[in-house]
Amino acid sequence: MTKKKPTILVVNDDGITAPGIKVLLEEMQKIGKVVVVAPDSPQSGMGHAITIGRPLRLDKIDLYEGVEMYKCSGTPVDCVKLAVNKIFKGRKPDLCVSGVNHGLNYSINVLYSGTMSAAVEGAIEDIPSIGFSLDDFSHHADFSHCRPYIRAIAQQVLQNGLQKATLLNVNFPHISKEIKGIKICRQATAKWFEEFDERLDPYNREYFWMTGKFQLLDRGEDTDAYALSQGFVSVVPTQFDMTAHHTITELNSWNFDIKE
Amino acid sequence: MTKKKPTILVVNDDGITAPGIKVLLEEMQKIGKVVVVAPDSPQSGMGHAITIGRPLRLDKIDLYEGVEMYKCSGTPVDCVKLAVNKIFKGRKPDLCVSGVNHGLNYSINVLYSGTMSAAVEGAIEDIPSIGFSLDDFSHHADFSHCRPYIRAIAQQVLQNGLQKATLLNVNFPHISKEIKGIKICRQATAKWFEEFDERLDPYNREYFWMTGKFQLLDRGEDTDAYALSQGFVSVVPTQFDMTAHHTITELNSWNFDIKE
Repeated sequence: MTKKKPTILVVNDDGITAPGIKVLLEEMQKIGKVVVVAPDSPQSGMGHAITIGRPLRLDKIDLYEGVEMYKCSGTPVDCVKLAVNKIFKGRKPDLCVSGVNHGLNYSINVLYSGTMSAAVEGAIEDIPSIGFSLDDFSHHADFSHCRPYIRAIAQQVLQNGLQKATLLNVNFPHISKEIKGIKICRQATAKWFEEFDERLDPYNREYFWMTGKFQLLDRGEDTDAYALSQGFVSVVPTQFDMTAHHTITELNSWNFDIKE
Repeated sequence: MTKKKPTILVVNDDGITAPGIKVLLEEMQKIGKVVVVAPDSPQSGMGHAITIGRPLRLDKIDLYEGVEMYKCSGTPVDCVKLAVNKIFKGRKPDLCVSGVNHGLNYSINVLYSGTMSAAVEGAIEDIPSIGFSLDDFSHHADFSHCRPYIRAIAQQVLQNGLQKATLLNVNFPHISKEIKGIKICRQATAKWFEEFDERLDPYNREYFWMTGKFQLLDRGEDTDAYALSQGFVSVVPTQFDMTAHHTITELNSWNFDIKE
């Protein structure tokens, strides 16, 4: 039996020149054949956005020697759709990895994150998919402690597969924390408390910079937030059925009074 | 006991001049005090995107007489964040309604839809929230058959409330179908099969228009797709915990082999 090298699609949301994606593609090269498709500009906070009403560009570039790479003018989700349809052309990759994001995508951030949405799109395409993120927003973030974990988690996914319509959301503690191991977790309940920094432009018109504070609303010790706070790599199995199944019975008891 | 009129935040993703939001605000004026905050340009397919790294504008405009309205330069989710923080200033509205979208947002579309993401953001802010969408992409779509249902559903939500961290995703059949009633459903399993229309620009550089076909992968009769096909208004209770709780036990049995 010959063991074929797995084909691995690498995407991100920080853009094709981000140091985080270089770390990810280097680790994936150790275990498979890599194809990179990433946005040509930063796309943080793009969530599951797709490009409608505007055309898309997809251009092959030689950024790192020996790596098949494409930059895309669209969103992280567009990158996955273009990769599947125009590059792989139906012959699906064995794995889709997204990141490594400069900044955490734990808890509620899974909704806002382009990194995670690209991985979700991979899972919608029936490709085993993983999003990786690091607790460091800096362009010069140190990802060295993440490398062995990225490889080990990717290899486990390749070996065991993932249940249908699920993917993994992996977050790493900052380099300054000693990693204690891996914890399988649930998404913590939290929200952002926004603050809008109000300014005047040179024409005396008001504008806002959106900033915010992350507020944890969950004391559970089985959450990604808790695992990260204790120095663990958090792994949250993630799905995209948004149905609140537990409320269906209650809603069926409502009386809708339709008055024309 | 005096009955205070509820305060209702109206948002959308098709933009503040879309006919769908006019229908929604008119129906909401019949039952409450309305504040409209909507994008200044179409934002379809923006998913849960937020604006990072660019400033935001929020300007009061007089589009319809007697309606408090603001246009926002950001995404649908930005609109909700700005409304809560800069307009309501912590005193939350009693209801957040989004739409009426020109085009369906059933099944997997809940992930891509700016309409639904605005409603999800309302729910994150602990505001009872509903997204409304119609099976008609046209600018001249006829929403008249939706009106009594919009009112009835909004009134039931105001009366009964919604369970914590849940919202409603409501989709209406096309005007050409006789509405048979309301069905509480789950999100159907489906995906988009993309097609990329490949062209050359005047400089002989390739670009793509993304199009696609919606493919239902679900034969269930308890889905929104089935309800709509039978002429019902579909109501899917929706939540935003993305954890795949059912796979946690299995993942805990994996052996991660960390090699430095």
